[in-house]
Amino acid sequence: MVRPPAAVTIMSKKTHVTWHEQAVLREQRERLAGHKGCVVWFTGLSGSGKSTIANLVDQRLCQRGVRSYLLDGDNVRHGLNASVEMLQERHGQAFAERFGLGFSATDRQENIRRIGAVAQLFCDAGVITLTAFVSPYRRDREAVRELLDEGDFLEVWVDAPLTVCEARDPKGLYQQARAGQITSFTGIDDPYEPPEKPALVLDSASKDPDALSDEVIAYLEVAGKLRS
Amino acid sequence: MVRPPAAVTIMSKKTHVTWHEQAVLREQRERLAGHKGCVVWFTGLSGSGKSTIANLVDQRLCQRGVRSYLLDGDNVRHGLNASVEMLQERHGQAFAERFGLGFSATDRQENIRRIGAVAQLFCDAGVITLTAFVSPYRRDREAVRELLDEGDFLEVWVDAPLTVCEARDPKGLYQQARAGQITSFTGIDDPYEPPEKPALVLDSASKDPDALSDEVIAYLEVAGKLRS
Repeated sequence: MVRPPAAVTIMSKKTHVTWHEQAVLREQRERLAGHKGCVVWFTGLSGSGKSTIANLVDQRLCQRGVRSYLLDGDNVRHGLNASVEMLQERHGQAFAERFGLGFSATDRQENIRRIGAVAQLFCDAGVITLTAFVSPYRRDREAVRELLDEGDFLEVWVDAPLTVCEARDPKGLYQQARAGQITSFTGIDDPYEPPEKPALVLDSASKDPDALSDEVIAYLEVAGKLRS
Repeated sequence: MVRPPAAVTIMSKKTHVTWHEQAVLREQRERLAGHKGCVVWFTGLSGSGKSTIANLVDQRLCQRGVRSYLLDGDNVRHGLNASVEMLQERHGQAFAERFGLGFSATDRQENIRRIGAVAQLFCDAGVITLTAFVSPYRRDREAVRELLDEGDFLEVWVDAPLTVCEARDPKGLYQQARAGQITSFTGIDDPYEPPEKPALVLDSASKDPDALSDEVIAYLEVAGKLRS
């Protein structure tokens, strides 16, 4: 729970107005929406299909009238977790160097920490929140799990062997990593730590994205996050 | 627009599966919700009533079946924009010092920048997003305005004279600032820069929070963000 259900009453001496503060509770939003909020955390190698599957799930939820939203590199890396280069233009050099994010282990940790904090806010808003990031380190994913109430963090491992992901190489990143043009690339010269107890494992080497997104929807129904 | 409406087709050589990527557009979410997303940015001195009014607006929107959410100190300062002290326990000293936020002008700038980026995501999700932060610097608020599409940033000045806010002093902060126990406190030893062209000015010195929240709802209807 992000905000405590506190009712604060402030009596103004000057205006004799009573200032009540009563937050809308998550339960009220969920009742209104007709479903629960949660965080569906897709993790897996680059090219494993996280973003494709998450987008399909997002579409299906939208078609069913469900409040859902997808956090991924496209809408996070240019805003909330902008790089030094991106911050420089609007905010200046010193500011950008202080707050811009790169790809070191520490910067990846902060990247995932901020995404987790935002996912927590969306979850509190009653939204089925989908995230699609490599998020290779177990410790960083566990820190997000600990932020959330039990049962709100659904870890989904999009599992495909490195050879399959590298053959797909949709953004040409593996080729660049093999050529040494990108360093600290997950699966090549940086480790991927698979989930130990994922809520769901998606076999993206042998099944297609449509079938896998069906599996996610079915899981959300079984988990009680969605009416079947 | 956060995510481009691009349809990306990736053909996997290995699995012969076609990977389509088609994002749910903001317009689809808004059609589903029956209202537009936007950011209602409350700004004003500590004790001016931002949080009280924003909570009332949030409640009224929720009762009308509208997708709304409130970002304020309660749910942001402990998560996304945690202080050095708060980050230390879970993430260690070095990490906390690198990424924790304080109250210097630069840290306030980053505080507002992150909140603006998150508000942009909520707006893109079709949510009427309310924010309640002092946000004293014009430059920082303008940076948020520039992030958003025209008409999506509704600046609401909660206007009460310093004397009124100080007499209310709901959290005892003015007293501490006068005693020198808090420094760089807006209105005492740090400036508040009023909006130059706010969408709405709320006279919180002479009107009560209920009446003021009615004014906000009426404005959202007039601005076409909400059906009347």
